Amino acid sequence: MASMMKSFVDVTPGSQFPIQNLPYGVFRPSAGASPRPGVAIGESVLDLSVLADAGLFKGPLLAKSNCFSQTSLNAFMALGRPAWKEARTTLQKLLSADEPTLRDNDTLRSKAIIPMSQAKMEMPAVIGDYTDFFSSKEHAVNTGTLFRGSRELALPPNWVHVPIGYHGRASSVVLSGTDITRPRGQTSPPEGQNGPEFKPSALLDFELEMAVFVGPGNQLGTTVSVDDAAQHIFGFVIMNDWSARDIQKWEYIPLGPFLGKSFGTTISPWIVTMEALEPFICDAPEQDPPALPYLTEKKRFTYDIPLQVALKPEGASKASVICNSNFKYLYWTVCQQLAHHTVNGCNLNPGDLLASGTISGPDDGSMGSMLEQSMGGRKDIMLEHGGSRKFLKDGDEVVMTAVCQGNGFNVGFGACTGKILPVKM
Amino acid sequence: MASMMKSFVDVTPGSQFPIQNLPYGVFRPSAGASPRPGVAIGESVLDLSVLADAGLFKGPLLAKSNCFSQTSLNAFMALGRPAWKEARTTLQKLLSADEPTLRDNDTLRSKAIIPMSQAKMEMPAVIGDYTDFFSSKEHAVNTGTLFRGSRELALPPNWVHVPIGYHGRASSVVLSGTDITRPRGQTSPPEGQNGPEFKPSALLDFELEMAVFVGPGNQLGTTVSVDDAAQHIFGFVIMNDWSARDIQKWEYIPLGPFLGKSFGTTISPWIVTMEALEPFICDAPEQDPPALPYLTEKKRFTYDIPLQVALKPEGASKASVICNSNFKYLYWTVCQQLAHHTVNGCNLNPGDLLASGTISGPDDGSMGSMLEQSMGGRKDIMLEHGGSRKFLKDGDEVVMTAVCQGNGFNVGFGACTGKILPVKM
Repeated sequence: MASMMKSFVDVTPGSQFPIQNLPYGVFRPSAGASPRPGVAIGESVLDLSVLADAGLFKGPLLAKSNCFSQTSLNAFMALGRPAWKEARTTLQKLLSADEPTLRDNDTLRSKAIIPMSQAKMEMPAVIGDYTDFFSSKEHAVNTGTLFRGSRELALPPNWVHVPIGYHGRASSVVLSGTDITRPRGQTSPPEGQNGPEFKPSALLDFELEMAVFVGPGNQLGTTVSVDDAAQHIFGFVIMNDWSARDIQKWEYIPLGPFLGKSFGTTISPWIVTMEALEPFICDAPEQDPPALPYLTEKKRFTYDIPLQVALKPEGASKASVICNSNFKYLYWTVCQQLAHHTVNGCNLNPGDLLASGTISGPDDGSMGSMLEQSMGGRKDIMLEHGGSRKFLKDGDEVVMTAVCQGNGFNVGFGACTGKILPVKM
Repeated sequence: MASMMKSFVDVTPGSQFPIQNLPYGVFRPSAGASPRPGVAIGESVLDLSVLADAGLFKGPLLAKSNCFSQTSLNAFMALGRPAWKEARTTLQKLLSADEPTLRDNDTLRSKAIIPMSQAKMEMPAVIGDYTDFFSSKEHAVNTGTLFRGSRELALPPNWVHVPIGYHGRASSVVLSGTDITRPRGQTSPPEGQNGPEFKPSALLDFELEMAVFVGPGNQLGTTVSVDDAAQHIFGFVIMNDWSARDIQKWEYIPLGPFLGKSFGTTISPWIVTMEALEPFICDAPEQDPPALPYLTEKKRFTYDIPLQVALKPEGASKASVICNSNFKYLYWTVCQQLAHHTVNGCNLNPGDLLASGTISGPDDGSMGSMLEQSMGGRKDIMLEHGGSRKFLKDGDEVVMTAVCQGNGFNVGFGACTGKILPVKM
């Protein structure tokens, strides 16, 4: 039973990274060392390049692969689910309490397992293309109401038929902990003026999202069916899709968001696999009207992943929780997103990133952006540890977390954090 | 004088690739060989990896670089203009009629210079991100009129202030000669129905564009000023931004074009440098209202590059010219596009691609898409060699060319071609 599995590596009760999780990342064991794939276990990181060098991946798909000697996970992602399952089986065995191979080999163990506090995390993959979807009905209605004035007119007519998405900027996707500089840009003409203003964004926001890394993918001119889509999903990260609402509002008609988003997008460093998330499968929302046949899943499912956003002002001792949401609220599933993305023949590559769009839920406390929480800046968002916000101030740190509560164990994603630096002159 | 320069390599009069051009590409000299950088000269390709191996790049910036031993031009692009100028000086000297180094060394020459007919062209760079702008005022007015019904309301209010752009799909940018499969997708509900249709696109179109490859680029959180922007532009290609108008129309509100574009974007194989285009510098259109200070160029300029589109139906013996346009019509220059792209701190990387958007001119014959030429499908586009079109049929081949007419020489871009294959079932 999954809940009974134990590792010889110290894992404190309630840890986000027990042997049931084993999320993948890329790290440097020391400042000068080259990046290599690793797996989180308790408060440690397991170096997969060391295991591979020691010949410990003996399965038929990985024994001769050099995927763990790379500086990114792209090659491993390209191998597909059978190889991912083989790796997981191998790693759970090597880490288990009653397996001596690593446990009783002091030299190998001390080389392969290093304290997480010592590991310098890096981007887990080279992201070829990054796509952002718009899959939360609550978020679409909330923002549509703000932009168009009425809840009835809030949803564009295509929304219930199309898993709407757009291409994002891949170069500015950064790892948790990277500071984000407040962007400057054009904003709408102030009342009584003809021309736009040019200034630092005054309406800087976060967007609570999750994103998946694509596995094998498809060739240009071919499609992935909605029922095969899961075979192309390597795993999940938390994402903060930072947004400058004033820049976005002025620029986005008619071709969509551009500079209001491309100044930075933050992801958490550990990729949690679909295998680790299996215990948290749940029903996805019913769709009305029914999806078109190419989007209709034989077995429709999603994941129960509780999500939280906290805001820590500069100098504050504690972060204030300002949002509790859940991945399961999303109307369009990741399988529908992926199938839709390829239905025109568009090719997906290993390491491509597909993000969910802001994840808002039905309650006030579950709105995944400050735009929604502050009703477009009309209302203060109160911080439990003092102060209030409508949008982000310089020095604010946003901390997003996600922890699935299993039967006797947790499966966590670590944190997705970023701090706002003042605009550069 | 540039016009007097001659090469010992055969260059027929009127050739697009005289010694004054020297565009860069990536090619395989034979099917099994690895891709390497090359330069077009007459009907031949000069293999830069052979020259580098022979130690013929002796300048201070290139003597120790391995940029010509790569399978893409990204490393060379990253070096910046001083290195690009050094390479051009070296290559023009090595190829000149009175320079014996290559001319009189039979072994080296036959290894370094191969017939273009034998070279298999490859993508010139790994494209990290591809951005498409919307910089032709004529195109914006023509399409805005079709979508919104009146020329007065055609331009969105931001258009004269913002060099509007959006992120495109990098993975589906392909090389000239690659077949394009007609995409399927959702289209607007037919009259009297509530739900959308799902079908092969019936309104498949080309878009005549040009695109630049980015050179060194900038770090996240920093900007490139409009007057420094030219230092980050490596060179130009022709681009066909294939578009499925019916898919695009249904999906693009509110987040912009997605599957209506991402099934394929074609570029020509040879990158023509800014140095080669210097003789064709001309004034860019005056801007009214004046651009904001961050977009105001000390010395505003563009290039006189005549562009042509021809359509060759399946089985036809000749292609019919259906558009004559010019790069110089664009309202926003590439320097303005690049400065705008970075003004929020977005990082550009070597090999990123910035496209102009459809290049339409003031005359009927200069409209750069069938959407405009057929007035949204209301009018036949007559083909001079027989037949007519409103949009593209299966088997149609679209051929885009660009040739600058110099004083005694041409600077050409070769061709950007693609043929439509029927949808796959």
